[in-house]
Amino acid sequence: MAWVNENFTALQDSYLFSQVAHKVAAYSAAHPEQKIIRLGIGDVTLPLAPVVVEAMQKAAAEMGVKETFRGYGPEQGYGFLQEALVKYYAGFGVTLEASEVFISDGAKSDCGNITDIFDDANVILVPDPVYPVYLDTNRMRGRKIRFMEGTPENGFLPMPDPAVKADIIYLCSPNNPTGAAYSKAQLKEWVAYARQNGAVILYDAAYEAFIEDGELPRSIFQIEGAKECAIELCSLSKTAGFTGTRCGYTVVPLALKRKTKSGKELSLNKMWLRRQTTKFNGVPYVVQRAAEAVFTPEGQKQCRANLAYYKENARLIGQALEEKGILYYGGTNSPYIWLQCPRQMKSWEFFDFLLEKLGIVGTPGSGFGSRGEGWFRLTAFASREATEEAVARLRKQL
Amino acid sequence: MAWVNENFTALQDSYLFSQVAHKVAAYSAAHPEQKIIRLGIGDVTLPLAPVVVEAMQKAAAEMGVKETFRGYGPEQGYGFLQEALVKYYAGFGVTLEASEVFISDGAKSDCGNITDIFDDANVILVPDPVYPVYLDTNRMRGRKIRFMEGTPENGFLPMPDPAVKADIIYLCSPNNPTGAAYSKAQLKEWVAYARQNGAVILYDAAYEAFIEDGELPRSIFQIEGAKECAIELCSLSKTAGFTGTRCGYTVVPLALKRKTKSGKELSLNKMWLRRQTTKFNGVPYVVQRAAEAVFTPEGQKQCRANLAYYKENARLIGQALEEKGILYYGGTNSPYIWLQCPRQMKSWEFFDFLLEKLGIVGTPGSGFGSRGEGWFRLTAFASREATEEAVARLRKQL
Repeated sequence: MAWVNENFTALQDSYLFSQVAHKVAAYSAAHPEQKIIRLGIGDVTLPLAPVVVEAMQKAAAEMGVKETFRGYGPEQGYGFLQEALVKYYAGFGVTLEASEVFISDGAKSDCGNITDIFDDANVILVPDPVYPVYLDTNRMRGRKIRFMEGTPENGFLPMPDPAVKADIIYLCSPNNPTGAAYSKAQLKEWVAYARQNGAVILYDAAYEAFIEDGELPRSIFQIEGAKECAIELCSLSKTAGFTGTRCGYTVVPLALKRKTKSGKELSLNKMWLRRQTTKFNGVPYVVQRAAEAVFTPEGQKQCRANLAYYKENARLIGQALEEKGILYYGGTNSPYIWLQCPRQMKSWEFFDFLLEKLGIVGTPGSGFGSRGEGWFRLTAFASREATEEAVARLRKQL
Repeated sequence: MAWVNENFTALQDSYLFSQVAHKVAAYSAAHPEQKIIRLGIGDVTLPLAPVVVEAMQKAAAEMGVKETFRGYGPEQGYGFLQEALVKYYAGFGVTLEASEVFISDGAKSDCGNITDIFDDANVILVPDPVYPVYLDTNRMRGRKIRFMEGTPENGFLPMPDPAVKADIIYLCSPNNPTGAAYSKAQLKEWVAYARQNGAVILYDAAYEAFIEDGELPRSIFQIEGAKECAIELCSLSKTAGFTGTRCGYTVVPLALKRKTKSGKELSLNKMWLRRQTTKFNGVPYVVQRAAEAVFTPEGQKQCRANLAYYKENARLIGQALEEKGILYYGGTNSPYIWLQCPRQMKSWEFFDFLLEKLGIVGTPGSGFGSRGEGWFRLTAFASREATEEAVARLRKQL
């Protein structure tokens, strides 16, 4: 008799976005005249950069010719893309070897799959509020989860508590949904904690490309000693608009080692390689060529222009909130604006208010964890026109 | 203190293909004059079909334009591709709903990831010899594995043994590496066994497109009752040369339900959907459009022409072996030829013999399990010229 995984019953149904969609559809049907502005979803809207499209089409043509056709590639990614990333990291002072960079189909996949290499007895430390994938992927394995609270007091950047013992620590910086980003000094504390406790930090840097402040770290490996205690997950989804194209990368340093319960020391780089060669077959060749183009000088120029567009949207929204005296985080160094619901409204209450009074869709903060209650996420990914119209409505009606 | 997964220490290093490469490199260096023919690797060599390349380039162009750009797609795949597969299955008499078809980046990934939805206490039944991924992905979770032997007596098609209790059963048909394919009557027995024991069959149909014999099933869902006890994994890797393009699909019937250990009945379709939406973000849009083109009438014509090319290679190799009186399986309904090493040589002995005397590279059968010892795999994926040259050498020197 085959048994199914009991841990799945401990997962909460992810009603968040379906409930948002349901409410928007109902409102839309009742008010067909109202133009609804969507600042809810964390998905890009600008097209792929021209150099990226060109590289992809060229690669597709190669695949149609016997002499240049490519079959199975290395599961961990082609050398040309690994090398491009080694150079990219060098740009902010991080020295990597190509074999430390694993190309994947996205940070979400790796974020879930990396759980494979750890023992189920580990205690997992997860921020609240945060991207729900950290929680759910560990719940699927029945792991014990502890939360660390993001609050206005700590700027939604929880710091290590020496009294709390944790084995695997998720950090997301710039954070989804709060937009808050750790400083070097703060990450130094986390690295010290991890080293002292033999913990491993899973550092989600999916939004690093939004960082403008030169003082903020783009990678946890800018902190000394991080290579002995951290894995970094990153993605081209927001950096280059790859949400529908699917490419990310995970850095597992060669220096990172931990023991099994019976005391055998293993290299996490080798374990991840074994995991990926066994359960993954690499990213499409055409996508890896497209990703390579992102890291050319022209690719960087084109992609940075798109980021600047989103950042200006974020600035406009932030400006309006400031004028209204509404407390918010993010907006700079991040495509997210995390605001305190005015008049002590709860997250869903404010959702209804924004939708019904202003015709704006956002995401209730409570969907990202209990500490998100009373908070709300707006995104900078809409068009300039839509963002400006939203800002005008906020100014007038909030 | 973070612990790593102890089960990884139980994995054997996969020396097979690296040892093959090492031996070939050494021989090649010592005999630069010898033209080596590679019939070892299970990777396609013909380019993507023109309609596929065209669809991919068109989709890439769409991604470069704001109006047609696509961000996140549904994790389980776009409706247009699910519907194309529903029609494809209808072609061999299987009725599916679109929501039963999950698009993935390949059968290997799904084969590994599907382990997530099952309890670790299940007993896993795996054929020997077989594709090593079934074994390794379950060993990574510390599961108990039983083997069922493929032998010349059962035509390398092990059948259910009522005395052996198994919960999860892997079947691969046409089989990698033996090329042997189950008949409908044989699958009926497996379905009956699975239903009687509440087991779940994981049916790997990655080579279904090579089946020529109209009597052989293309899908386990051609067997009555299979929807209550089976999941089918399939891939475009060999069907359409997608080994470097990455697209597969997994069918999880809505009728398939099993209980957790505490007795709660769950739908495996819903569990897989939850797994995929949590740990996967879908296949690139451009790849899904390329895959859609495979299932158009023109796409089928072009892809079938490539399959016919490989099949003719297989026939030529089989013919030569037959003339030499060498026992083999596969060769029809499969791109693999599984032969008994002549003169009672062991697998690696025959590998050395073939390489050193004939300049032909194959794969030692012992690499696929202990019952593969004394057997050997040749593939039909080389060019016609190389295959004909190999056949001439086999005729002359074997």
